[in-house]
Amino acid sequence: MPSEKNIQVLLASRPSGEPVPENFQIVEAAVPEPGPSQMLLRTIYLSLDPYMRNRMNAGPSYAACVEVGGVMEGGAVSAVVSSNLPEYAVGDLVVGRTGWQKYALSDGKEVQKVDPSVRPLSYALGVLGMPGFTAYTGLLNIGKPQPGETLVVAAASGAVGSVVGQVAKIKGCRAVGIAGGPEKCRFVKDELGFDECLDHRELRLRERLQAACPQGIDIYFENVGGAVLEAVLPLLNNFARIPVCGLIAHYNDASLRRGVDRMPLLMRDILVRRLTFRGFIVFDFHSQFGDFLSDMSGWVREGRVKYREDVTDGLENAPRELIGLLKGQNFGKKLIRVSADPIGR
Amino acid sequence: MPSEKNIQVLLASRPSGEPVPENFQIVEAAVPEPGPSQMLLRTIYLSLDPYMRNRMNAGPSYAACVEVGGVMEGGAVSAVVSSNLPEYAVGDLVVGRTGWQKYALSDGKEVQKVDPSVRPLSYALGVLGMPGFTAYTGLLNIGKPQPGETLVVAAASGAVGSVVGQVAKIKGCRAVGIAGGPEKCRFVKDELGFDECLDHRELRLRERLQAACPQGIDIYFENVGGAVLEAVLPLLNNFARIPVCGLIAHYNDASLRRGVDRMPLLMRDILVRRLTFRGFIVFDFHSQFGDFLSDMSGWVREGRVKYREDVTDGLENAPRELIGLLKGQNFGKKLIRVSADPIGR
Repeated sequence: MPSEKNIQVLLASRPSGEPVPENFQIVEAAVPEPGPSQMLLRTIYLSLDPYMRNRMNAGPSYAACVEVGGVMEGGAVSAVVSSNLPEYAVGDLVVGRTGWQKYALSDGKEVQKVDPSVRPLSYALGVLGMPGFTAYTGLLNIGKPQPGETLVVAAASGAVGSVVGQVAKIKGCRAVGIAGGPEKCRFVKDELGFDECLDHRELRLRERLQAACPQGIDIYFENVGGAVLEAVLPLLNNFARIPVCGLIAHYNDASLRRGVDRMPLLMRDILVRRLTFRGFIVFDFHSQFGDFLSDMSGWVREGRVKYREDVTDGLENAPRELIGLLKGQNFGKKLIRVSADPIGR
Repeated sequence: MPSEKNIQVLLASRPSGEPVPENFQIVEAAVPEPGPSQMLLRTIYLSLDPYMRNRMNAGPSYAACVEVGGVMEGGAVSAVVSSNLPEYAVGDLVVGRTGWQKYALSDGKEVQKVDPSVRPLSYALGVLGMPGFTAYTGLLNIGKPQPGETLVVAAASGAVGSVVGQVAKIKGCRAVGIAGGPEKCRFVKDELGFDECLDHRELRLRERLQAACPQGIDIYFENVGGAVLEAVLPLLNNFARIPVCGLIAHYNDASLRRGVDRMPLLMRDILVRRLTFRGFIVFDFHSQFGDFLSDMSGWVREGRVKYREDVTDGLENAPRELIGLLKGQNFGKKLIRVSADPIGR
């Protein structure tokens, strides 16, 4: 493809608070040539996820931050365009952390072939990929759902939250979702089968949550923080478990909020009600990926786990879509279709 | 004992902040007569413990609070004075929650006979009783110490902290204590065998803690909160475990502190470093009491766990001594000798 150009999205500057388009730079570059132990990949779907906001900061997070001037990090499904690796042939489909770019080189060590049971292909970045695995491992290993218990999860129409609630239902729990706006709430209750879904944009979240959880809350899958956590805390039962997966409400915080210091209150709640707060990332449970893929593929096939995607065409739209994702403007798992999907949706 | 009177310490009023002597009332009463399914107990040792401060509040804690005008709650070792229960004979020694009083009636259901291996008798309220069991279960079940890891515990010369550090040493950890004053710190390091002990009254606790924990902190056994927690937080390693057993620094808090709200920071630490905070009380692991008593008796006998007690004679001194305990004025496990110890120390 001599006339093709690579397109890359770089981190132009670090955001202060909410990211703005000027924090990103879209550049054209030559399509790289694979070396003797490399292959060339063409991105089909790029996944957009809330954690990406943290990688734009200077401070340490799980992983190194993106350097200013560097390619934005992200997971993608790609097709092998040319290969000097015996294990990979032209046309193979792989998933890996190849970043916000149309073409990427890979030595094959940090990508995996897409499992042939994954259909549509984009599910490798969603319900059958990192977000689904996050929901599954956090809920089962830390949440430890028991029949009859009540689970609460926010961002309930999103990539992780939607799976958390549906797996909790499969495990016999009452699932209460929180989402932004009546359309998402209807979807979560009517399509995904949650017992209730509350709109966090309406007033009196705490009172409505209390009404939706008459037996209190046994598992709060934390992916937002902020006002939802505040509403949940007084309703947590003794021995409640709180897998801490994300804090999207705080990712854009540029400074600390002044007021009452609630850290001692949180510690007191942990003590008196014997709560378990445990942070995790999906890699912490990597040995469970086989079990996950088997269980989740079955549930998706049987229609017990439903999944909604929100696909935007064109890598040049990724900055705008990430900014919107951090405000809850997506409806379902956010994906960028960077080039044609050979399998189709 | 017709001429004997019962002595009781009542909660006269609820404290606001630090308790004062006026919150307590010492009264004389007739020694009660046991009914047909009761026995009369004479208190030998009364245990004073930080949790008692919480029972003086109106709000709910683990258990119901003490009513104003009611007898202060507490655990004690007692001798059976007279018994209408076939299982208990005069002279038997029991341990139970019989309160701040010289004589108590019991139906035998909420007391246990003191295990004959417990010597001295007061250890049934300490290293071989509730505080020792708290240290053992919280450390092993939640702290999960691994050889080579670093543990930090405050109140390190006290009833719980001293056992936590010594058991962590037995499990192969580096144990760093925090205590109030040079005398306690010397004792913790030289007598109890901790690797280091830092005086929280001196300046620059965080810097000294960092120097004492060159590999970071893997287990922080939380029994104080406040400034120690603040110093510990930045030093916690990925996957650190924090059994939350007590928050003595906050028990006298009458109002919330204003300033920066650190709850979002704590949540972020939990997320990014995958920390586990888990609250517990000793009753949560009651099925492990046999294992505990066997292990701990052996360690005490072998001199691998040493234990210091701080005994004051006379029930009338209990209010003053609890007030002092909450300020760290005790040195070792605080006990009130209410009547003569038939076994002797």
